[in-house]
Amino acid sequence: MDQSKTPASQISVQPDTLALKEKARQEGIETVWERYQAQQPQCGFCELGLSCRICVMGPCRIDPFGEGPQRGVCGADADIMVARNLGRMVAAGAAAHSDHGRDLVEILLAVAEGKAPGYKITDVAKLERLAAEFGVDASLPLTEKAKELALAVMEEYGIRKGHLTFTKRLPAARLQKWQQLGITPRGIDWEVTEMLHRTHMGVDNDPLNLLLQALRCALADGWGGSMIATELSDVLFGTPTPKASQVNIGVLKADRVNIILHGHNPLVSEMVVQAATDPALINRARQLGAQGINLAGLCCTGNEVLMRQGIPMAGNHLLQELALVTGAVEAMVVDYQCIMPSLGDLAACYHTLFFSTSPKAKFPKATHLNFTPETGADLGRQLVSRAVENFARRIPERVYLPTESVPQVSGFSVEAILDALGGTPEPLINAIKAGQIRGAVGVVGCNNPKVIHDYGHTTLTRQLIRNDVLVLDTGCAAVAHAKAGFKTPEAADLAGPGLAAVCRALGIPPVLHLGSCVDNTRIINLAAALANTLGVDLDQLPVAAAAPEWYSEKATTIASYAVASGIFTVLGVAPPVLGSKTVTEILLGGTTPHLGACFAVEPDPEKAAALIINHIAKKRQELGI
Amino acid sequence: MDQSKTPASQISVQPDTLALKEKARQEGIETVWERYQAQQPQCGFCELGLSCRICVMGPCRIDPFGEGPQRGVCGADADIMVARNLGRMVAAGAAAHSDHGRDLVEILLAVAEGKAPGYKITDVAKLERLAAEFGVDASLPLTEKAKELALAVMEEYGIRKGHLTFTKRLPAARLQKWQQLGITPRGIDWEVTEMLHRTHMGVDNDPLNLLLQALRCALADGWGGSMIATELSDVLFGTPTPKASQVNIGVLKADRVNIILHGHNPLVSEMVVQAATDPALINRARQLGAQGINLAGLCCTGNEVLMRQGIPMAGNHLLQELALVTGAVEAMVVDYQCIMPSLGDLAACYHTLFFSTSPKAKFPKATHLNFTPETGADLGRQLVSRAVENFARRIPERVYLPTESVPQVSGFSVEAILDALGGTPEPLINAIKAGQIRGAVGVVGCNNPKVIHDYGHTTLTRQLIRNDVLVLDTGCAAVAHAKAGFKTPEAADLAGPGLAAVCRALGIPPVLHLGSCVDNTRIINLAAALANTLGVDLDQLPVAAAAPEWYSEKATTIASYAVASGIFTVLGVAPPVLGSKTVTEILLGGTTPHLGACFAVEPDPEKAAALIINHIAKKRQELGI
Repeated sequence: MDQSKTPASQISVQPDTLALKEKARQEGIETVWERYQAQQPQCGFCELGLSCRICVMGPCRIDPFGEGPQRGVCGADADIMVARNLGRMVAAGAAAHSDHGRDLVEILLAVAEGKAPGYKITDVAKLERLAAEFGVDASLPLTEKAKELALAVMEEYGIRKGHLTFTKRLPAARLQKWQQLGITPRGIDWEVTEMLHRTHMGVDNDPLNLLLQALRCALADGWGGSMIATELSDVLFGTPTPKASQVNIGVLKADRVNIILHGHNPLVSEMVVQAATDPALINRARQLGAQGINLAGLCCTGNEVLMRQGIPMAGNHLLQELALVTGAVEAMVVDYQCIMPSLGDLAACYHTLFFSTSPKAKFPKATHLNFTPETGADLGRQLVSRAVENFARRIPERVYLPTESVPQVSGFSVEAILDALGGTPEPLINAIKAGQIRGAVGVVGCNNPKVIHDYGHTTLTRQLIRNDVLVLDTGCAAVAHAKAGFKTPEAADLAGPGLAAVCRALGIPPVLHLGSCVDNTRIINLAAALANTLGVDLDQLPVAAAAPEWYSEKATTIASYAVASGIFTVLGVAPPVLGSKTVTEILLGGTTPHLGACFAVEPDPEKAAALIINHIAKKRQELGI
Repeated sequence: MDQSKTPASQISVQPDTLALKEKARQEGIETVWERYQAQQPQCGFCELGLSCRICVMGPCRIDPFGEGPQRGVCGADADIMVARNLGRMVAAGAAAHSDHGRDLVEILLAVAEGKAPGYKITDVAKLERLAAEFGVDASLPLTEKAKELALAVMEEYGIRKGHLTFTKRLPAARLQKWQQLGITPRGIDWEVTEMLHRTHMGVDNDPLNLLLQALRCALADGWGGSMIATELSDVLFGTPTPKASQVNIGVLKADRVNIILHGHNPLVSEMVVQAATDPALINRARQLGAQGINLAGLCCTGNEVLMRQGIPMAGNHLLQELALVTGAVEAMVVDYQCIMPSLGDLAACYHTLFFSTSPKAKFPKATHLNFTPETGADLGRQLVSRAVENFARRIPERVYLPTESVPQVSGFSVEAILDALGGTPEPLINAIKAGQIRGAVGVVGCNNPKVIHDYGHTTLTRQLIRNDVLVLDTGCAAVAHAKAGFKTPEAADLAGPGLAAVCRALGIPPVLHLGSCVDNTRIINLAAALANTLGVDLDQLPVAAAAPEWYSEKATTIASYAVASGIFTVLGVAPPVLGSKTVTEILLGGTTPHLGACFAVEPDPEKAAALIINHIAKKRQELGI
């Protein structure tokens, strides 16, 4: 679905997006789509992975038509160049998730040491389970146990320990496959650093060897950094349980102080959620003429507070600018990742205050209020207070909230899914064996202006559920699905008869929201639990993953750990690897004999659905079900 | 010295390089210079830092002329794009050095555990000093102490400890400056990972904040990973002492089995050095008609075995291909970093065997014999044996060794320099105070086909020593200087009268070789020792650094930790930052009020010398000497 082949107006399938984009046009506001158009034509060398800036003998380019240079100055050919570039993308994605996880470990330690007022151990049972998993003395009092757990988790980032604890959750057969390939992850930051080292000029110049390290690095994310982020967020803020909420830009309210929480990490947003219930602040909002304080989520910070607190969701990646175009946002509070640096300029076109909070992530024209564990709770109050005071500056004539929000049910952690099933995966397995549910697919990932906004996600998922395939979602995909109405129990009507019956019996939607993009680890945890229960490896399960509209390095990493974990993964946007036949062939099938899984690239979500449904049928046949 | 402005023949100031380049031309062999020419014109966007491939909404480019797009798809402007790209270069350089250091820690632990036959603790006194520095119990027996030291050093890579032990070597004033800027390095892999995270789309979008993290990451290399590599290599293989050797391609011998040791890490090459003295292997060489086994170094592996074992040095970065064109090389053994992936093809044009040894670094057409701590000593013997047998395949008519080698003295570790001074830095300080020596400059870094080979190094250094400035060198620069004859006591004749007198009194050359590129930490350690003795901060010293011909990401990192440590640093090749006025201005002076040092870019080494001499004069004046 190359945008250039579609009518200019058709940038999104979402009515709120289209309406706000039209307002932006009328107001002369530039958004991501104009910037994308202005970048056309994008550099073909870079798109194919055939440009290299790794050293200053370069920059170098390889001519994909075979007429110009076929080697960089150092002698690197197309295969080396493409593999190095891809390796660095995976490393950066792993770094992003894992550094996010690190922030959670730091807070857990600070809580245990009494240095993080406002934060606490919320899910004690989960803390106990994790402490046992990490070998922490069970007889310790809670705060001591939390401290020892935090210190033990910190070791996962280092080099002394040499293995990642969470990989023990996997079937032995999977670990053996990794061992044979030499991709068992050792330490989280270690794998990131080694990937960067190996892509330095004159180090690893074997595309296969480079790709193996990329997989190891990705696994250090999936079974390391990201999983730490998910698990410790649950400990600190509670493991999600199903809860009803609302979605689309209509969750903003014309009569309230609207605060948008954007980014990826719940540390600040949870404090904002707490502060927004403060009667003094609510009274102050009323004094200023508002009916109250209204929080709305965006992107994965939104998913975090939606999953745990039921905070309604305004939109995903490509709505982040348009949310400000509503003119109804008193404050946008951001932490980090996927936050467009255009937002400061855009906020300045309205009365919106734009607050950055992470010392790692500052933005042009943002007001930076720095987060620390010690002051996080105060920061939450300060942010809400500043937003409330800003209500007085709102210009009612510029407010435009074009749609009514729609309902959704969120909060399907693995624990919640098992609860819904009566405490065991058996009913799910039985439904799969019986063919009521054909299989399960994680539809995840971002938005990208190269794809019609949310068309990829919703088209693929509609086909899957119609064919009795249960969909698990996270990230931007989850928002797309919710807006499309896939996230209510009534959406069982959209599912095939088998899946619909299961959904009706359990009172769940056919598309289950598992959280933010670090929470893709919930999906692999569930897959591992199913595999263990069935006594098979993950690649034998009738499951798959898809990222129809991905854009970020993190998505590259997620897709890589999915494949290395044995899950067939379909990408809707081609990664920059097509300049190397060798690398492309490894990714599209070369991994299968060793890992039981590979990538596919299919921009058309209808065809992607067919690929996945065929894959599931094949896996069912192989399992004899 | 843009190559395009010089006669085509003038690619190098080194006679061996020129003669072998002519042979390569006659034989139709492609080298780095042809590939460099084939890449012309190089991409101007990439050269200016104005291209971005960080996400697949891109690739994006910013028009430096202000006519095309001024923002990427995400909204990043030129400043953000350039700062992110530079941050990633620094992270990759830090990763390379630090992963090198990690290999040494692993071997030290293996030695202590009796798992690395052939390796041993060579410098016990240094081990004791380091153990004390890391708080290891002094009463432990040696192997226990080695083990505890290794484990303690491993903590420097992690996140639990939160600070780097070696920074305690610095004056308090320097540490305060870092604290004020928030750039005190915490853990080595941590800083690398955080830099990658912060350069992910939508994280850090403040060029200054990005550059500060780049400095912190560089410091984690200089006072972390690189320093670990140097110190532990000394422990394992001996701290260098002055020793006479030879340099240039003439160190290869027509009547011997020639083995070239290339790369950066001494782990394998030290085992080759041991094996080459094996009488059985020497006898076998004689049986095959050779007069013996001859080892020669290349690049920094060469520097490692030159510094410690006096192994003669064949050449630096731009000679790595031409060394094979001699037709006299039975085997080239590589570990990692700066090894051109062209070497396999090139070796195949001759009888040369090309062996890769690191699991992290495989190469096209290389025979991979994998290094492990357990088998390193065996690997050394195997490599020498394979080389010896290959002597029978040499084609004498194709052998061309155009030059006679020249003498050099190497091995000036900080310990050796202090020994030469009688055990204390006082004589050096007194010579500086008296003006006999005006100051000291580290002339370091790589080669780059954008610069006439070794012209930058030798021209700058000739000027500096003529002006009574002591030069300390490492890396490719050290080879250039040695070939130019700067590395014998007689080279005092090339120095100004003050420096010459000191050299003659001490029997040292005016250019002291401190080692490989990780050994730039010897230079900053010496600077810190001088500053501590004088009771000043490093930026107050009459010292500077220069990298006239740098090409690698590692060099970016070294230059960054030099500046952050307070040392004015002149680059001969512009880094890809000129697309951002903000970033360029920060680097060229914006850091000075905070760090007492900044970068300069000066391609003309004569002018670079003037800049440095002026800088030294200013620092002398400020010190009142």
